[in-house]
Parts: sequence; structure tokens; C-alpha cells
Amino acid sequence: MRWARIDLNGTPSYAVVEGETVIPVRGSPFEAWERTPQRLKLAETKLLVPVIPPTFYAAGMNYADHVREVAEKVGQQPNLPTQADIGYRTNNALIAQGEQIVIPADATDQVQYEGELVVVIGRKCKHLTRENALSAVLGYTIGNDVSERTWQKSDRTLWRAKNTDTFKPMGPWIETDVKLEDLVTKIRLNDKEVFQFPTNHMIFGVIDYLVNMTTCLTLYPGDMVWMGTEGATLNMKHGDTIAIEITGIGTLSNPVVREGM
Amino acid sequence: MRWARIDLNGTPSYAVVEGETVIPVRGSPFEAWERTPQRLKLAETKLLVPVIPPTFYAAGMNYADHVREVAEKVGQQPNLPTQADIGYRTNNALIAQGEQIVIPADATDQVQYEGELVVVIGRKCKHLTRENALSAVLGYTIGNDVSERTWQKSDRTLWRAKNTDTFKPMGPWIETDVKLEDLVTKIRLNDKEVFQFPTNHMIFGVIDYLVNMTTCLTLYPGDMVWMGTEGATLNMKHGDTIAIEITGIGTLSNPVVREGM
Repeated sequence: MRWARIDLNGTPSYAVVEGETVIPVRGSPFEAWERTPQRLKLAETKLLVPVIPPTFYAAGMNYADHVREVAEKVGQQPNLPTQADIGYRTNNALIAQGEQIVIPADATDQVQYEGELVVVIGRKCKHLTRENALSAVLGYTIGNDVSERTWQKSDRTLWRAKNTDTFKPMGPWIETDVKLEDLVTKIRLNDKEVFQFPTNHMIFGVIDYLVNMTTCLTLYPGDMVWMGTEGATLNMKHGDTIAIEITGIGTLSNPVVREGM
Repeated sequence: MRWARIDLNGTPSYAVVEGETVIPVRGSPFEAWERTPQRLKLAETKLLVPVIPPTFYAAGMNYADHVREVAEKVGQQPNLPTQADIGYRTNNALIAQGEQIVIPADATDQVQYEGELVVVIGRKCKHLTRENALSAVLGYTIGNDVSERTWQKSDRTLWRAKNTDTFKPMGPWIETDVKLEDLVTKIRLNDKEVFQFPTNHMIFGVIDYLVNMTTCLTLYPGDMVWMGTEGATLNMKHGDTIAIEITGIGTLSNPVVREGM
């Protein structure tokens, strides 16, 4: 089942996507809901960010080759994480499928994509176990953890490297029927595939993170966890289009512009 | 003017506090509002966390003596920040005036308070200047940035050191009439004053942070910025009460319990 959040005559509304048809609902996937009689065409529907989370979690360094690549870029020794310590991103930076990634005028040319699986939490939960952790997940979507690598190296926190406005494209929708082990992430820069990797080949998997996080904290409906990316990444420049596909979920595609050009 | 958020017959409501009287409003301080005819007694009113922010910002290392103290505790060289790089905390950890700080059973005895000024943003804004930055502020409240120092030392991120459930007491209300240079922060552990400091003696002040942050990101109504703490901090244990007063704003007081005791 595919949950989209759409612009319905100027108001955000949840909707079920079935093929090329969009069916608005009353309510939301996080509570009671029912289909309305309306039927929209997907191609004519404005998709919004599929959820605005109470808290925006991000795993960060969670694929071995990417840890080595980033360490090399920022001039440090690679340091594989030994426990599932979660990090954070911020809502101001979220944009939807099709919206523009805006590179600030003072950024360098080292602005890069990171294609990521996004876990969307469906219910309030704490002290999850390995057995019941996935039952707390509503579904999965796709995130692009856009990063300015010189700021990532120079700043004490990741605030502008990762959380500049428009640096967190997410969508196109939340897919509830997913077999994690079957997923493949494919990155296309200007329609050319530049990298692919098995999405679930993480250092710490979805269950590892959810179990560890909920030892200390309560997760709420709509919270989301970005699971990190693999491999090397390339610069994006004004006029590019960056697309992240995760097989079985969909494709998140965004044009890139530079401020002032 | 004092803005509280209260439990009004089971529903959160904003209210104006005048002396010992609480006046519920329709609407909120972030949009249109009007007073209702109701009058409640402050002593009989349940105060809630005064705002649930879209994004929870925190300055972290922002007072010189505290930077030196923490560096010593975690066994690193003190490293005074050279730019106003903002960090983050999370909403799951927020509790209100009077609510219990719960130390997890697996925490060490190194669980410590940090008394902080909290800046609450009143309007959507970007590219603030030194001249107009404070006009984006609705008002100020008080935060206690509770921290488990061994986790702060061992983990790759601050997730459980700082963001364990109940580790972010905040309140009691938002005060709009504040002269930053006049504020004094006073910490009382079990009614004994253990430390005080001039609140505004920050490495980077409120204006510095707001101007720098909004070069890259949009702030939204209800976003908040915790401004850091000064000096050494002490352990809190089961049965303690920790109170943070900021003169002219109020006092945030919370009992401490340890899980399983």
C-alpha cells in the first residue's frame, strides 16, 4: 500500500496511491482513516513531503564503503561505528518529490547527494525487541541527504552541511509492503546511473537501530529514521537532476539550482 | 507578558499568566488569539511544556568555563568554538515544570543538570540581521539540559546522553519582556544554591546565533534555541529536586527519580 501526502485544493491531505490513481482519505495512516469518493490522476497531483516528523532521526555512517569515502574526503581515518548511535536532521530542510534543491550562493561545488532508505514509524513505542521492532514501522520512503562537504569538514556540527533549506528531499510516498532484503538503491544523475547498492547491506540494520534507540527514548507516529548511504558520491551542479530509486518503493527526483544563477 | 501552555480539561491550551491568575486564550501566541472569560488559579493549573517545537535547536558549548569543565570530564582538550554552529535536541525528551526526571536503570551516577536560557521563535524568518534578529523572538523560557556524562563520552552522538526520555525539562512559561543583559541564572539542588552566572555572558549571543543560523535555514514559529550553560555541574540522584531560576523569567523545578527504585 502506498501512502502519499498531497496538496488538495491548498490543504495537505493523506491519500492512497493505486497505480496512476490517487484516492484522498479523511484522517491519516497514523490514526483512523477512510477513503473519500474522490479519484485524482497521479500525474496531475502535487505530492508533498510524505510526513513532517516530530523528530527527524538519521543513522549517518551506516555503510562501510561510505564511511571510508567520507573519511578520505574530510581528511580523517575511517572509523566504523561500533554501536547504533542515532543522529538528527531537521524539518526546515525537507522538500518533496520534484521540488528544487537550492545550493546557496556561498556553498562550494562540493554539494553531493546521498540516497537513503527512510523508515517511517507508525505507532508510539518504547523498549522494542528484535521480534516486534518492524511492527512499529508504518512503511518506507526515500531520502536524499544532500551534503556540502567543505562545511561537513569545517563546522563543529552538521547544521549547514546537512540541514540547509532544501537539502533534504524526501518521497515520493510511503510504501508499506517492503521486503528489506530485496531492496536495491539506484542513483541516477541526469538520467545516467552512477551507482547502485543493496539497500539492506547496512552496518546496523533497521531492527538494530529501532531496538537500540527505544532502550532510552519513545518513538512517536510519524517519527522517521534515515538509514544512511553507501559508496562514493558526486558533485551536483546548477541544471542537474538527481534521482534516487529504491526498487519496490519508487523514485525520488529533484532538479538542482544554484542561488543567484 | 507570560505565555503558558496548560492542561484545560484534558486539552492543551495557551494561556496568559498574570500574577497568580491564568487566563486561557483561543488561538496561540504564534497566530491570532483572544482571551477567554475563564480565570484559573496558577497554583491549581497543570503547566505543560510551553511549546513543542518544529525543530529543537541547541547551542551546546557556549560558555567558556563550561567548555573547559566538560573537556576535563570527557578527557579531551578544551576547544572553544570559533563560530556559532548550532546543534540539536529532541522532543521526546521534553517534560514540563514539576514533572519527574527519570534516570534510566542502566545510567551511571554521572547524570547532571545544565541550566539554560531558551529562545522561542515567534515568526517565520530567514536572513535575519543584527538589527532585526530579536524581533523574531516571541520570548524566553528556561531549559535543563540533563546529561549522562559517561554516555556523552562514549557515544558517537549525544542521542542517549542528552535525549533520553525526560532529560529535557522546560518551562515554566514563556516571558516576552526580557532584557538579556540583566538576567542571572541560579541553580538550586535540594533548595541549596550551587551555582549562579550572568545568563548573557555567552561565547556567542542570541543575536549571533539567530543571524548565523538564518543564513542557511528558515526558522519557524515555535522553533526554539537552547543557549548552553556555564560552569561545573553536579550529579543528581534519586530523591533530589533540581531548580533552575532565571531572574525575571521564573523557576523551573523538577524532582529526580531513578528507574526501578
